[in-house]
Amino acid sequence: MNNFMDKDFLLYSEGAKKLFHSFAENMPICDYHCHLSPKEIYENTQPSDISALWLSGDHYKWRAMRSNGIEEKYCTGDASPKEKFFAFAKTLQFCIGNPLYHWAHLELQRYFGIDTPLNEKTAEDIYERANKAIENGDFRPQTLIEKSNVKFVCTTDDPVDSLEYHKLLAQKDLPFKVLPSFRPDKALNIENDGFKEYIEALGKAADIKIKTVKDVIAALYSCADYFNSVGCKISDQAFNYVPYREADKDDLDEIFKKALKGKELKQKDIDRYKTAVMLALGRKYKELGWAMEIHIGAMRNNNTKMFSSLGADTGFDSVGDCEIAQPLSRFLDALNVKDELPKTILFNLNDKDNTVLATMLGNFQSCEAESKIQFGPAWWFLDTMDGMTSQLKSLGNLGVLGKFVGMETDSRSFTSYARHEYFRRIMCRLFGQWIDEGMYAYDEDILKEIIEGICYNNAVKYFDLEV
Amino acid sequence: MNNFMDKDFLLYSEGAKKLFHSFAENMPICDYHCHLSPKEIYENTQPSDISALWLSGDHYKWRAMRSNGIEEKYCTGDASPKEKFFAFAKTLQFCIGNPLYHWAHLELQRYFGIDTPLNEKTAEDIYERANKAIENGDFRPQTLIEKSNVKFVCTTDDPVDSLEYHKLLAQKDLPFKVLPSFRPDKALNIENDGFKEYIEALGKAADIKIKTVKDVIAALYSCADYFNSVGCKISDQAFNYVPYREADKDDLDEIFKKALKGKELKQKDIDRYKTAVMLALGRKYKELGWAMEIHIGAMRNNNTKMFSSLGADTGFDSVGDCEIAQPLSRFLDALNVKDELPKTILFNLNDKDNTVLATMLGNFQSCEAESKIQFGPAWWFLDTMDGMTSQLKSLGNLGVLGKFVGMETDSRSFTSYARHEYFRRIMCRLFGQWIDEGMYAYDEDILKEIIEGICYNNAVKYFDLEV
Amino acid sequence: MNNFMDKDFLLYSEGAKKLFHSFAENMPICDYHCHLSPKEIYENTQPSDISALWLSGDHYKWRAMRSNGIEEKYCTGDASPKEKFFAFAKTLQFCIGNPLYHWAHLELQRYFGIDTPLNEKTAEDIYERANKAIENGDFRPQTLIEKSNVKFVCTTDDPVDSLEYHKLLAQKDLPFKVLPSFRPDKALNIENDGFKEYIEALGKAADIKIKTVKDVIAALYSCADYFNSVGCKISDQAFNYVPYREADKDDLDEIFKKALKGKELKQKDIDRYKTAVMLALGRKYKELGWAMEIHIGAMRNNNTKMFSSLGADTGFDSVGDCEIAQPLSRFLDALNVKDELPKTILFNLNDKDNTVLATMLGNFQSCEAESKIQFGPAWWFLDTMDGMTSQLKSLGNLGVLGKFVGMETDSRSFTSYARHEYFRRIMCRLFGQWIDEGMYAYDEDILKEIIEGICYNNAVKYFDLEV
Repeated sequence: MNNFMDKDFLLYSEGAKKLFHSFAENMPICDYHCHLSPKEIYENTQPSDISALWLSGDHYKWRAMRSNGIEEKYCTGDASPKEKFFAFAKTLQFCIGNPLYHWAHLELQRYFGIDTPLNEKTAEDIYERANKAIENGDFRPQTLIEKSNVKFVCTTDDPVDSLEYHKLLAQKDLPFKVLPSFRPDKALNIENDGFKEYIEALGKAADIKIKTVKDVIAALYSCADYFNSVGCKISDQAFNYVPYREADKDDLDEIFKKALKGKELKQKDIDRYKTAVMLALGRKYKELGWAMEIHIGAMRNNNTKMFSSLGADTGFDSVGDCEIAQPLSRFLDALNVKDELPKTILFNLNDKDNTVLATMLGNFQSCEAESKIQFGPAWWFLDTMDGMTSQLKSLGNLGVLGKFVGMETDSRSFTSYARHEYFRRIMCRLFGQWIDEGMYAYDEDILKEIIEGICYNNAVKYFDLEV
Repeated sequence: MNNFMDKDFLLYSEGAKKLFHSFAENMPICDYHCHLSPKEIYENTQPSDISALWLSGDHYKWRAMRSNGIEEKYCTGDASPKEKFFAFAKTLQFCIGNPLYHWAHLELQRYFGIDTPLNEKTAEDIYERANKAIENGDFRPQTLIEKSNVKFVCTTDDPVDSLEYHKLLAQKDLPFKVLPSFRPDKALNIENDGFKEYIEALGKAADIKIKTVKDVIAALYSCADYFNSVGCKISDQAFNYVPYREADKDDLDEIFKKALKGKELKQKDIDRYKTAVMLALGRKYKELGWAMEIHIGAMRNNNTKMFSSLGADTGFDSVGDCEIAQPLSRFLDALNVKDELPKTILFNLNDKDNTVLATMLGNFQSCEAESKIQFGPAWWFLDTMDGMTSQLKSLGNLGVLGKFVGMETDSRSFTSYARHEYFRRIMCRLFGQWIDEGMYAYDEDILKEIIEGICYNNAVKYFDLEV
Repeated sequence: MNNFMDKDFLLYSEGAKKLFHSFAENMPICDYHCHLSPKEIYENTQPSDISALWLSGDHYKWRAMRSNGIEEKYCTGDASPKEKFFAFAKTLQFCIGNPLYHWAHLELQRYFGIDTPLNEKTAEDIYERANKAIENGDFRPQTLIEKSNVKFVCTTDDPVDSLEYHKLLAQKDLPFKVLPSFRPDKALNIENDGFKEYIEALGKAADIKIKTVKDVIAALYSCADYFNSVGCKISDQAFNYVPYREADKDDLDEIFKKALKGKELKQKDIDRYKTAVMLALGRKYKELGWAMEIHIGAMRNNNTKMFSSLGADTGFDSVGDCEIAQPLSRFLDALNVKDELPKTILFNLNDKDNTVLATMLGNFQSCEAESKIQFGPAWWFLDTMDGMTSQLKSLGNLGVLGKFVGMETDSRSFTSYARHEYFRRIMCRLFGQWIDEGMYAYDEDILKEIIEGICYNNAVKYFDLEV
């Protein structure tokens, strides 16, 4: 029996141990997609206790607690920090097989120096030791990021964002860079409440009076240029399904006007608008040399009651199952045929789509970049040992895995960098097995290049980041 | 090389052996969903021979035999018991990788004390030994259930059922309880032949003259109250896809009248009717404190020719692949928003839907129960080592596995309780690997609670059964 | 650590080694589906160098190279053979986890006697040794086929094909047979450019003036009879989705006339035509005793730009995700209900459909053949260790794996027979694990029959081939 989550955690074979400790363990981190707040990074506030750090904003933990039958007051409510921590500890011990269990213990080990498994019996002791560590130590965001050996943090920002904190952070002499990413979802989601208000804000941000779809695009282009001037290299869009439907200009403007008047739109008109704006954005991203991330398949805010009381991103999302192959192929081809397809990273939230995405890549590769079209790492609900292993195997089977840009956290938490370690252990576990079984030739130079590449170097090269 | 299916069958690691033999092996069984006949349990007849026990009603075995090119007369036809047994033996040896192979040998070992692998060469010997065991022993249903350490048998019953045998069984002093479950499929399947006749039978059962959908619901409520008085705790519905479409009362009644007149209905009208009745049923289940089981994704009676000659449930069903995420989310939310969502267990027959279901749960959990929304165990075609392992991993990755209500047989056979042992071995195999690799902390108290919970205790608590 | 791809490559357990070396290794090959050119087999030309052999027509390799950012001139362009080989070597070292990596090294070992791993450092040496081997040896198609122990090569041919080379090959005294397969895709794809011209060619081939759908069918029947006379035993059709929609004769002829006039057809009319022709073909196949192969789920020619410059089958295809269960069930049932369903092999390109297909089989088995409806081996993008293992597990879990017809290459390359070895190693790896863990009884007679069956004997029997 191996020791619980020791230095060889997940590294079952000799090959795995060697690969991890020789090549992966000490590589820096390029967290090219996350939801950290640049404001919080800039303000750099010490948390009051472990509950503030762990439980004040983490919908993964709330979700597990609710699944354990815990009352809402211990999740988002007014229970005391200690009560919340105990409710979480009581839940965690039943989370056998859940990445939360591994993440929590990795974080306890790496940031708090606590090796004890967390459960109801140990909760009191760990709560005290963790809070003492916070009291006596430095758990401010910038310190946590630096300590985690992070070199790049790419946040997720709305086109209308002033990027004030990115600019303030750039003026500081930090050992890591915080760069914005361009997420134009609100400009695309013409069917949503608040679209009209958003378009007004967008017009204001770009100093354009928006009357037509052409104006929307011009405003987005203007914002993109501004983002680019602040160091942005990446755009990101979330598609619950993949819209693709062509339309002519006149139809588009009619659809747009209807939306601004608050009229209900037909599905096909929603898709027409989204297609037109996405095609225009793709062209711009290509021109700017940005990478286009597409996150496909989340089904959000399923619980109307909880959405009314808590809002979005509070743990009531799940995975959709729409057909995606045909519209995604048509969308990428429409850009590619005009030489307007930017570097693209495709992320799926439903693992049934792994084969579709991992083969879609190959349709549009080119010599503009090594693996110009990337299969994004296992994400959110798939950010598990099984999910990551499946993604690595799919990409291995169907693409050139050695050129993978690797992991990002997609996280809102400053201690979540342990997930990069988790990913690296899982990758070395898989590669180590292949090597131990004689399925891949053991050549230190090549393996070093591949593993350091997937850990960090490939991403830096792919996104064209200045080290 | 391990011995063939010995006491450590499937328990590859030290951890697995320990968990199974210490915690899982001797737990009682709560078979909360099966298709056993309460009449057969009550009548308690000794089978004539092993062919009667194994081959007279088991469509899994017929299906394998047909796949081996065996003529129908050896399956459902007039071949002799011995000929049928030999045809099965000849098939089984080619069923490498099939759970039938494991089930059959577990049953030979546990109920007949026969350790020999069954194949063409051993068929004669095993046929004789098994029949001698039956001749000299007690293979009556009640004995098999008791010997299998079963405490609860929840059958599957039509709302119009008199529950006569459940009541007779309740009067006997048995070491297990046989409880009805409420399966209103025939009242939902408005598109099926015989719907009109069923509605008449339903009206009669409830003593209501059914003229409107409101009357249908009233009749079902009346039957549900009756079921509840006989100890029912569970409802069950089979959806080949997930219907969800809202409608107003007038439309519903028009649809209903059309159906009674035998007119063909539009798909959207079928869905409207089903949605309305299911929402009404959900409300009632919640009121009664029942759990609502939803079995999604079977595609039944695919072979028109064999259906004409043999009828349903004879081995001609397969797995569908409809999109389910969106309508399932909307259905559950429609109940939840009115505080009418009962405890719910979601079962999928297509493993591509594992991630959709395992994340759907989290949208609607609450403090009403530990894991109020459950991910049902791998079922029917997924009731395999791979299927069960995937289900456990999905739930582990995405929910709180320690609160899982565990296995049921879904079976029509009195020796099928060996499948609970099969499930427990597979679970301990998985958990044992996690423990041996240091991925879950070894703590006997917690592991005992988790494993005994999944084997039996969680179900008893969840369904609120009186031990 | 095991040696790189040595004689026990992939055979991790003692059981696996025993099964492979005792039963699988020396069995002949029945390659019942491939895209080898009968003309090239007949002309039997020695290749000029390893680049000509490996890189002149293999879209798998081009695709990997493009994914590594290699310029098109090194794939399909005018770079020198040596430059192309180096570009491939440089790519291959990053293809960790890709079957190309295993195929290439198996081919180097088996056909060239080269055991060195191929990478940038070894490319020069291997290029020279391989070319010397070609210079001094016999690498002509017939020799490679014979050396690979192949007994049957079933090519893929258009109904209008003269089968000239098949007839010439039949006259030679070769140690293997080259048989045609009937692939009527062009007669089915009424929506494609060139349909009219194809129908003319079909009419000419069958000497029938085609004016109606009935005439199309008569012409196809005539061609099928001709194929049959040249030894054809197999038909093959590629469905990107499964069309199934009934229509009456008059509608069909109207649709057909519209198509011939070059008018755009509605999707439902395309499906009606395809359904009618496929049902008629199924009837004919049944009459001829052929097997009907159905390859489901490729999404072809996604890259319009590259299609314009390079045409089809150049590496720009990927995997679709349409729903297939319902229409496939209806299609097979429509034939079965009239006793017109031939032996059928169902292939899926999206592994999400494994459970759907592996359960679909069981709906239509009969005593006409052992596993009359077969689940085709993992194919194209799924022809990987993971893909093959999943297919074997699915069929094992849900069918009678011992009666599986086994592997085919689906390849255009004369050295691709190494993929049969790859398949056999993967199968023995899986079966060996089951035996080592006591999950299948170790009985040499039965295992020999099963493994030799899946390697070769089952296919010969199933397709009714004359040895």
